[in-house]
Parts: sequence; C-alpha cells; structure tokens
Amino acid sequence: MGTGEQSGEFVREPLGVAERITADGSSAWPVEAGRYRLVGARACPWANRTMITRRLLGLEDAISLGIAGPLHDERSWRFHNDPGNVDPVLGIEYLREAYERAVPGYDQGVTVPAMVDVASGEVATNDYAALERDFSTQWRAFHRDGAPDLWPDGRVDEIEAVGEGIFHDVNNGVYKCGFATTQAAYDRAYDALWARLDELSDRLADRRFLVGDTITQADIRLWVTLVRFDAAYHGHFKANRQKLTELPVLWAYARDLFQTPGFGDTIDFEQIKQHYYGVHTSVNPTGIVPRGPELSGWLTPHGREELGGRPFGDGTPPGPPPEAERVPAI
Amino acid sequence: MGTGEQSGEFVREPLGVAERITADGSSAWPVEAGRYRLVGARACPWANRTMITRRLLGLEDAISLGIAGPLHDERSWRFHNDPGNVDPVLGIEYLREAYERAVPGYDQGVTVPAMVDVASGEVATNDYAALERDFSTQWRAFHRDGAPDLWPDGRVDEIEAVGEGIFHDVNNGVYKCGFATTQAAYDRAYDALWARLDELSDRLADRRFLVGDTITQADIRLWVTLVRFDAAYHGHFKANRQKLTELPVLWAYARDLFQTPGFGDTIDFEQIKQHYYGVHTSVNPTGIVPRGPELSGWLTPHGREELGGRPFGDGTPPGPPPEAERVPAI
Repeated sequence: MGTGEQSGEFVREPLGVAERITADGSSAWPVEAGRYRLVGARACPWANRTMITRRLLGLEDAISLGIAGPLHDERSWRFHNDPGNVDPVLGIEYLREAYERAVPGYDQGVTVPAMVDVASGEVATNDYAALERDFSTQWRAFHRDGAPDLWPDGRVDEIEAVGEGIFHDVNNGVYKCGFATTQAAYDRAYDALWARLDELSDRLADRRFLVGDTITQADIRLWVTLVRFDAAYHGHFKANRQKLTELPVLWAYARDLFQTPGFGDTIDFEQIKQHYYGVHTSVNPTGIVPRGPELSGWLTPHGREELGGRPFGDGTPPGPPPEAERVPAI
Repeated sequence: MGTGEQSGEFVREPLGVAERITADGSSAWPVEAGRYRLVGARACPWANRTMITRRLLGLEDAISLGIAGPLHDERSWRFHNDPGNVDPVLGIEYLREAYERAVPGYDQGVTVPAMVDVASGEVATNDYAALERDFSTQWRAFHRDGAPDLWPDGRVDEIEAVGEGIFHDVNNGVYKCGFATTQAAYDRAYDALWARLDELSDRLADRRFLVGDTITQADIRLWVTLVRFDAAYHGHFKANRQKLTELPVLWAYARDLFQTPGFGDTIDFEQIKQHYYGVHTSVNPTGIVPRGPELSGWLTPHGREELGGRPFGDGTPPGPPPEAERVPAI
C-alpha cells in the first residue's frame, strides 16, 4: 500500500498474484482437496473474509489454514505465533518466502489471504475477492452438508452492487481515513465512510441481511470491517463519528452475525489490536496497544430475529471450528 | 512534562512560578482588580478550571482573559488566534515572553493558566490549584452578586480528598495513559483511571454533585477531563474502555454541567481537538485532526434534576459570557 504523493490519499496496491483456482481447468490452478493451504491472519479483514467463507461452507478438510501472527518486521507477515516461528505445513518463517517462490524477485505487497500450493510452496493466488467467490462456486464438491449459498445465482448483481460501495467506502474507506497524510484527504474519506454507513444502516433497519433474506457474501464483506471498528478503526484510524456500539442498527446487525457460528469464532480481538497498533508505526509510534474497548457487549441479545430472515437459507449452521483453529473467548 | 526513563511513565513537571495572589498582603502579589490578566487556552483542562471558576464567580471585570490558541510551535503556547498573533493587552506573541520576564533564562514548562501582571508583563503565578482556590477565598470582594460558594469552609477537606484521586487518576491519569512509553506504564495508568471513574460513577449515581448538594471546586476538577474525554482522551490517549457517552452516570453528570452557565460556555471542542491532535506529534505524527465525535448529545436532557441538589446553593447562575469570550455553538 502507499499514499498518493499529491493528494495525501491512501491508494491500495494492486494484488501481486491475482490468479484463480477453478474446477474446470480454465485457470492456472485446479481445485483439489488437500492441495492448498490458506494463509490468513486473525488481524486482517481481507483474510477474515475468506476464513469466514471457508468456515460457513465447511471447507476446513479440503483447505488447511495457516495463520500468520499479528506482528510484522520489515519482511511483513510472519508465523511468530507458531512453534519455532515456522508454519507447521509450509515450513516457512515469512509468508514472503511463498511469494518469492511464485515470483522470483517478488517486489509487491505480501498480503493475506494467500492460497499456497503446498507441494511447491508457492503462492497460487492472493486475490481475496476471487478466492471467496470461488470457494462458493468452484469448490462446491467439497462443501459440507447444509452449506449455505453465499453467492446465489439470482443475487450476484445485487451482491456486487452493494459490495462495490462497501469496498470503496467501508472496507478500504477506514484505511483511507487512517493512512491519509493530508487533512483534506482524511476529511473526504471520513465523509464517504459515514455516508455509506448511514445508507447501510437504513438498508438494514428493516431487513436482517444485506441481500435477500439469507447470509450472503455481501454480509461477510461488511461484517469484517464492522467487527474491527471499535477495536481498531474508531481510534487508530480516526473513524470516530460514533463507535459501532452507538449505531443501533449496525451494532445489532454486527452482534447477530458475531453470534452466528462461522463469524465470531474466527475473531481474536487481541490479535486485531496488536496488529493495527503494533504494525502501523506511522500512525502509532509508541506501538502501545489500547486495553479497550470493553467487549462484553458482543454477547448481548441483538433482537434481530424479529426481522425474520433465514440465516443459512435451506442449510444449517456449521459446527464448531477444528480444535487447532479455536480463538480465545471474549 | 517528561517521561520517566526507566518506567516509561509520564511524570508531570513541577510548576515554574508557584506563587500566590492574596488579599492580605501575605504573598508576593496582592489582589487588585484590573491588575492581572489570566492567560488560558480553550484546549487546556488546567486552564479551563480557572476559566470556569472565574465565570461562576463573576470575576470577568476584575481579571481580564487572554486566550492562547490551540497550536504550538517549538516555543509552546502562542496567541495565534489573536489579530497580528499578539495578545491585545500584553502585546506578546508567545506566552514564554511573560515567563522570561518573571524568571530570566526561564527553562521550565510554559503552561496555562498563567496570571500575568499587566504592568510589568511578568507571570505572577502559574499554580492553577492555588489560583482556583484563591479566586474563591482571596478575590471575594470582587465576586458577582449571587456568586456560588465553590470552596465552602465545612467542605474543604472533602473537596481536597476527592480532588486528590481525581488529580492523580483522572486529570493527570489520562496524560499518563497517552504519554506512557511502555506497555506496562500504560496498563497501570489505564487500570487506575478506570477504577477511579467507576468509583466516581458510583458516588454520583444518587447525588447530583461530588461534595454536598451544590457545585464545588471538586466538580470543576472532574468535569474538565470528562468534557474532553471523547474528543481527545478516548482515542488520542487510548483511554478507551468506553466513551463517556457509554457511561450513563458520568455522561448525564457531564451534560448537566455542560448545560449549566459557566461550564459549557467555556468549551470549544474544535480547539480542544486541534491542540491534542496537532501538538502531540509523538502520539499523532500526521497531525490530522479527527472529524468526530458527533457532539449533539451534549445538548440532550440529562434528567439529573431528579436527584435534587441546588447547583448554585443560595446563589444564582452567571449571565452570559462577555461578547469577546463567546465560543462557537456546537
């Protein structure tokens, strides 16, 4: 990522390995159970999207999960929470190693999520948006019984339309607030963020989910930013018109999903705070990690059942996460 | 101010000119209407204590008010909001000039509030705690009709006892959170702050004011930190267990006083934010000033009248501030 020199605006770098993994052989990489390891991080919202999608669809047995720790050194994401600081399957200390195996001399962003081909150790793709879609459409043979349809045929245009605004103004919008280097660039990002959140709040006031009456990929996209809002974006990124806890509709919506299997069980608030406050020394030079916010509100009743909706459509919630993927209780 | 090198704890510097102004000639400086100019700043809670006290007691005609702007350069407080960047009465650009006139080669902190002897241009005292007490006890001859008793004889010990905890854990406590340079020092300050705020919230749950049933200096001491909490301390200083708006008792108490003449009419939230976010580059290197928080809640009903209490005792509220001292409406 970088900052536009003239405007002071944050500009997200293009993805370095934007490939696809497909079932029909139309891309460089084929769908194959056990072949890939999804490298995510508890801190990162982009990784969280794929980690939630994998959980909801029950792809845990087909795609293993490596988890980079929250803290970087100058070489970016690394496995500092794993024994010996090494991912136990890939045998690497830095995610950068897998990028360099894919692209010798790799000089673009080392990002999570990344799907790594275990045999060769190279990154197959870091295209999070393609990944999460393809988990629904290309990996269907490996979905669990009762997996929901997160990418329903008749709703794709609506998901993409809603998702476009969420991407620019919310997911990336909080970064534009936090990494702006001029007051004007910050002000623009702040206005766009809050206009969009107000619009989404209106949309969700009388419907339980963003598109249709079931959980779709659109909800996953919005939620990964909401769940990090008070812990990171409100203070650290100055996205502070209100806390999420002060926005009645969005706070209830976020709690509803937090309490839904596959969402809250992917969240480690401590790692989220450690990452944002510990890694962005341009924003927080001391690296001190706030003790707040108080988290117990996440477990309080949300009342959104009254709006109806069928969270998993004709499907069922996923079971608990595999033992090795459990997060601390809040 | 400085930071303890070993512990990473913020340690407030001693005051550079700790004198008193008294009515009986027992100190270096005598009480005399028109002789002194109180130099404050909208941003600063320590200055705000004296500015509120002056307003409540109606000392505006006896003691004029100069207002340093929110932004510093390397020479500290300066009159950058005044025409020509010069205080219209003292004729100085930097408050440091008045300190240097008092103490040649002055090398301690240039702080507000400072009482400046207008004729000589030298700082008479910057002892904010003595100043606010002496406004009540030494300047009595110049109080307005209906001035409240902010320092009632029978309540002084209780005010000092409550005030001691407020000083260490709240007024100075938020600075200890924000300027800690180690995680351990921050954690200690955070725990002390929230333990004290919880205790004060319990105390104020069924009584309208901190000591007795009227506004006293104890309330002024607590309030100057509460009113800045969400605008500055919650995010900038990482005092973020909750926002003030999420603490029902303290939020209602703070609104009650905000809506009381002499309190809210001394507050300029924009200058508060400009100061904290603009001056502490060790905490906020970009100097970008957050647009939030939303402020309209300050004007909502607080319901504290139900607890009884007589805000001004046998006295009356002050009238509006002098024209030259008006702050922007929120």
